Amino acid sequence: MAPFSFDVLARDGRARGGLLRTPHGEVETPVFMPVGTAGAVKAVLHRDLREMGARILLANTYHLMLRPGDELVARLGGLHGFTGWDGPFLTDSGGYQVFSLAALRRLDEEGVRFQSHIDGTAHLLSPERSMQVQQNLGADVAMAFDECPPGDAPRDVVAEATSRTTRWARRSRDAHRREDQWLFGIVQGGIHLDLREASARELLAIGFPGYAIGGLSVGEPKEGRDRVLEHLDPVLPEDKPRYLMGVGTPEDLVDSVARGVDMFDCVLPTRNARNGQLFTSQGRLAIRNARYKEDPRPPDPACGCPTCRTVSRAYLRHLHLANEMGAATLMSLHNLFYYLDMMRAMRQSIRLCRFAEWRRDTLRRLADGQDGP
Amino acid sequence: MAPFSFDVLARDGRARGGLLRTPHGEVETPVFMPVGTAGAVKAVLHRDLREMGARILLANTYHLMLRPGDELVARLGGLHGFTGWDGPFLTDSGGYQVFSLAALRRLDEEGVRFQSHIDGTAHLLSPERSMQVQQNLGADVAMAFDECPPGDAPRDVVAEATSRTTRWARRSRDAHRREDQWLFGIVQGGIHLDLREASARELLAIGFPGYAIGGLSVGEPKEGRDRVLEHLDPVLPEDKPRYLMGVGTPEDLVDSVARGVDMFDCVLPTRNARNGQLFTSQGRLAIRNARYKEDPRPPDPACGCPTCRTVSRAYLRHLHLANEMGAATLMSLHNLFYYLDMMRAMRQSIRLCRFAEWRRDTLRRLADGQDGP
Repeated sequence: MAPFSFDVLARDGRARGGLLRTPHGEVETPVFMPVGTAGAVKAVLHRDLREMGARILLANTYHLMLRPGDELVARLGGLHGFTGWDGPFLTDSGGYQVFSLAALRRLDEEGVRFQSHIDGTAHLLSPERSMQVQQNLGADVAMAFDECPPGDAPRDVVAEATSRTTRWARRSRDAHRREDQWLFGIVQGGIHLDLREASARELLAIGFPGYAIGGLSVGEPKEGRDRVLEHLDPVLPEDKPRYLMGVGTPEDLVDSVARGVDMFDCVLPTRNARNGQLFTSQGRLAIRNARYKEDPRPPDPACGCPTCRTVSRAYLRHLHLANEMGAATLMSLHNLFYYLDMMRAMRQSIRLCRFAEWRRDTLRRLADGQDGP
Repeated sequence: MAPFSFDVLARDGRARGGLLRTPHGEVETPVFMPVGTAGAVKAVLHRDLREMGARILLANTYHLMLRPGDELVARLGGLHGFTGWDGPFLTDSGGYQVFSLAALRRLDEEGVRFQSHIDGTAHLLSPERSMQVQQNLGADVAMAFDECPPGDAPRDVVAEATSRTTRWARRSRDAHRREDQWLFGIVQGGIHLDLREASARELLAIGFPGYAIGGLSVGEPKEGRDRVLEHLDPVLPEDKPRYLMGVGTPEDLVDSVARGVDMFDCVLPTRNARNGQLFTSQGRLAIRNARYKEDPRPPDPACGCPTCRTVSRAYLRHLHLANEMGAATLMSLHNLFYYLDMMRAMRQSIRLCRFAEWRRDTLRRLADGQDGP
């Protein structure tokens, strides 16, 4: 029997505290997964991720199939052997990236033909090919291949993409062979509650050990997303993990945990760090701002991360303006620590049945600090 | 009394094993100083430098006076307070960089007027200004302001620069006030032994607690440099540290320690790392090379650095080709570890009076491995 399980161990309102077991270790939920697009979280070493409490990483199927190639990764021991990250991995389906990055796409029922954004070579991603790639990559959790329409697509386009996502989910399921890898289905349907519900019910009929909610955080209003989550909460099974793909800000994570979500990934903490934006307990801090030029305080005096324990805003600002790579590393460490620490606090507040109170206080502090600490 | 001293504790041939004491800690010599141009070693955090055994960092006066400004650094506690590196620092004089980086230079007896390569603003570097800047930066060791002519300059140009370097050394000495900072003189004279000897004797007459040898590693043949070092060895005092500026390759360091040098700095380990070149016990390794595409071995199987303990050549090659910052970090860590570890081995071989044997074996292994390991 494959060493997988998911158990909801605590509830507070709709928020859930759970435990996901994988062949590469246990993951407490709700969890934030740092994004290691090409098999590495940008500007951060695995060791630092481990020390900060990261438990599971996301890697991108689209990027890795193009470079260095999934077969090469397989020959070098899969993502775990190749990258040296010995904790759990999750790979996305490649669907979202092929629609956002690749050139000359041609979509039909078979799949998506496209040209690599790296070297122009021609490729096909289909449910069968995505399963082949993801099985080569060997993550602990793989995703069914889905069609992710743009956030502003008209309803009939979303409806057609949603039906296709169901057909592709069935083909993904049929093509998936590895017993040491869980395959999650992806619910599509945009902000249309009936399409979302139909999508979820069709995936449930196929049957997956976990369900992702895709196609959000693509430009839709936050209220639309909240409604989708609230609508799906009673439709999705209580005993299976729910993963909200590509979301989001600290506020988004808090509000989505409140609506029953267990898993998240997002590039925001690392991308914003490289652009000089820090998430702090008092709101966001743009390190370029001249007010920090001689500021001897750490980015967040309330934070215990390796960056806040050792450097000042003035020094970080200097490194950032001098284009020193260390700036990206120090700020990525801080932002990831902030996200991971916030998830720890959320899990604890759920266990203690104080999530609502914690949420109110946290959101208020973030709102008060919109101009920075 | 300022807490400075230098003692030669072991000798083997001309090689010396010493101990440099500074207000921020002790440094065993011969020592390699990683270069932290803008107050940070590129792509490497202080913590990792400490763990790898780096004891003293070099920072560049020219860069820091332009950005963030030496007065700002002073207000934030000098280099130690500003950067958080609590071990010793050495700052160069700014002379070399102003000649290699700045635009629209005008040199006269007063100093060098130039425009910043960052924003075009006008600046003056003179002995007095260099002392002011270096005292603001507050490194443990400062350098006298020197004129560094190009490696291919005719003899009369070198001779004039050498005389001016002596006059500037005297002015540097007169302008230098901090008692918690040592000021070293810089011997110039190109590859002309008589000019080198005159320069050294003039500096000795002024009197410094340490002597640097500048103006090498600027394109001169290696034999020329070796002759200069051999010629200066009996001229420079036995009981003062000797610092060969900006040198060099692993072979250069071994050959210069054999000629009595105690201190080194060089950007090679970090710059080459960013360009994908690794120094190994078996010679150099260009990570881009297709032969490493599926190579599961660490960069140097004989190396105990954090990189070699955790990642393969195949993974490093992938990260490098994908322009991931982690590649620069992992390879910089390895190259710096290689340099620092080689210095450790040299110091031990000197203490054990086995330096000649160690040197022969090491240089042979490096020569055998010129095509990479």
